[in-house]
Amino acid sequence: MKTTAQLLDLIENALRNVHYPAHPAGLYEPIAYVLEEGGKRIRPLLVLMGYGLYRDDVEKALPAALALETYHNHTLLHDDLMDNADMRRNRPTVHCKWNANTAILSGDTMLLMAFRHLLKAPCSQPEALFDLFSRSAVEICEGQQYDVNFETRTDVTEAEYIEMIRLKTSVLLACSIKTGALLAEAPAADAEALYRFAEKVGLAFQLQDDYLDVYGDPAVFGKKIGGDILCGKKTFLLIRALGKANAARREELLRLLNSPTLPDEEKISAVRKIYDDLSVAEDCQTAINGFYEEARRALDEVALPETCKMPLWDFATSLLKRKK
Amino acid sequence: MKTTAQLLDLIENALRNVHYPAHPAGLYEPIAYVLEEGGKRIRPLLVLMGYGLYRDDVEKALPAALALETYHNHTLLHDDLMDNADMRRNRPTVHCKWNANTAILSGDTMLLMAFRHLLKAPCSQPEALFDLFSRSAVEICEGQQYDVNFETRTDVTEAEYIEMIRLKTSVLLACSIKTGALLAEAPAADAEALYRFAEKVGLAFQLQDDYLDVYGDPAVFGKKIGGDILCGKKTFLLIRALGKANAARREELLRLLNSPTLPDEEKISAVRKIYDDLSVAEDCQTAINGFYEEARRALDEVALPETCKMPLWDFATSLLKRKK
Repeated sequence: MKTTAQLLDLIENALRNVHYPAHPAGLYEPIAYVLEEGGKRIRPLLVLMGYGLYRDDVEKALPAALALETYHNHTLLHDDLMDNADMRRNRPTVHCKWNANTAILSGDTMLLMAFRHLLKAPCSQPEALFDLFSRSAVEICEGQQYDVNFETRTDVTEAEYIEMIRLKTSVLLACSIKTGALLAEAPAADAEALYRFAEKVGLAFQLQDDYLDVYGDPAVFGKKIGGDILCGKKTFLLIRALGKANAARREELLRLLNSPTLPDEEKISAVRKIYDDLSVAEDCQTAINGFYEEARRALDEVALPETCKMPLWDFATSLLKRKK
Repeated sequence: MKTTAQLLDLIENALRNVHYPAHPAGLYEPIAYVLEEGGKRIRPLLVLMGYGLYRDDVEKALPAALALETYHNHTLLHDDLMDNADMRRNRPTVHCKWNANTAILSGDTMLLMAFRHLLKAPCSQPEALFDLFSRSAVEICEGQQYDVNFETRTDVTEAEYIEMIRLKTSVLLACSIKTGALLAEAPAADAEALYRFAEKVGLAFQLQDDYLDVYGDPAVFGKKIGGDILCGKKTFLLIRALGKANAARREELLRLLNSPTLPDEEKISAVRKIYDDLSVAEDCQTAINGFYEEARRALDEVALPETCKMPLWDFATSLLKRKK
């Protein structure tokens, strides 16, 4: 059985060996640029790990791993354009380095290339594979739309927020591992349990992101601390704080977030002070642990020896323990 | 066997019966809006006609017909955003009625819904179907990129132009009819001949569009006459004129096209005068007829009685005879 590092090598090697047509360069160069950026490759890893639970020839799952990574980067490309984000992984985003139209068209092409990678995966039930993939991708669009809708609302409930991050983030992790399981012809109940496992890990992962944005170590956290506060993002912390605060506190919090004049650092520390008073950091950690327990229970349902499942659990735990 | 009008009814009815989730409305309302607009439905018609050559139960091909129409409208949605076009079929485009981000995200979702329609088509060789569809869609992105590249070039050759419109327009017509043939389990040689037939019809169709933009009857042509001249589009007429003109004429033509001060009507009539002097309208008609002859020969190769193929040829001819 291969280690996570070995699987990562396989993935990076496969990504490097994807052949892009030379022409039109304006279409394919941005795609190669985005995929060489070196993300964490979580989704293709989950494809290979899901497959590797049942079979040794993980190379067979590489086209599907490429599909999921290409698809994920398609969403980042279009999301960065929609969010008008200048940088991603310390490099200019495609619409900044090229232009908005390039981001749209190269992004569309990446979605199609993801499908074409998936077509190369040897599979006894291609329709199930394509159904899972396309359904998940539609759900991700729905999640993105809810995220946009939430920007202009102050009454987002925790349940709505969790559903949004499930759609926007978790579904793709769940789709990745189930894709691996389907390719390996895992029992249907196992494939479902693995789906739920990754779904819950994804929820914990996203809440951890919310937490680190406020309480992360600036020296290791990749992004600037407090970004979510500055753009008034409806995170778990903010929604919980708005729910716990009395009317006066609630009003103060909204006034702080909406203040156009308050200097960034003052805004961040004032909001964090309210979070601290209301203990929402602890609430967030409790929620994260709850989802991890649910993930653990889902993994327990997978009818395989514990030793086989250990690397997967270790990987999930490493995602939780990340500081960036 | 169903008439074209009956097939159109089937298509409109199927489009009306597509179920869109109620939420998030911001994602699905623009999709319903785009698809209710009432285009010519050429692509879904070609799916049903291709299928109908071999089988009577054309209803079975409706999911694929929906896939092709949904995909086509996805490209229009993203193209209109990239071209910054305000109107389409006498209605505001999605990025004008909503905004650019909605056009991106609802457009992405339409591409995914196209795949999901195609998944519902009962097919003995789903991989061939998905390969054809996704390959065609990548080619259409390439065609769009070449079209963008040509905007800033004055040395585009006729061969390059024909290849661009083949990718941007013809490939989807060809994919549509071949999709119908694949679903009906037509002989492989027939499916290929039908592909080439629609490909050539598409080339003639696009050249006709170039011709009508300059020589169409403003009373029946849907768009304003001379639009291609005003935006300096590298059409067949312009490329041929630049090729035939002597150095002085060529310079005059480029000067006219690039003039920022010349009133629209003067610019159009001055360019048309040069086109007339160089007989490029006749050249364009010759090229159109050439592609129609190639289309006819491809259709002749299809191993079916002439009477079966007649409606398809009539449909192709009606596209050529269109004045708008």
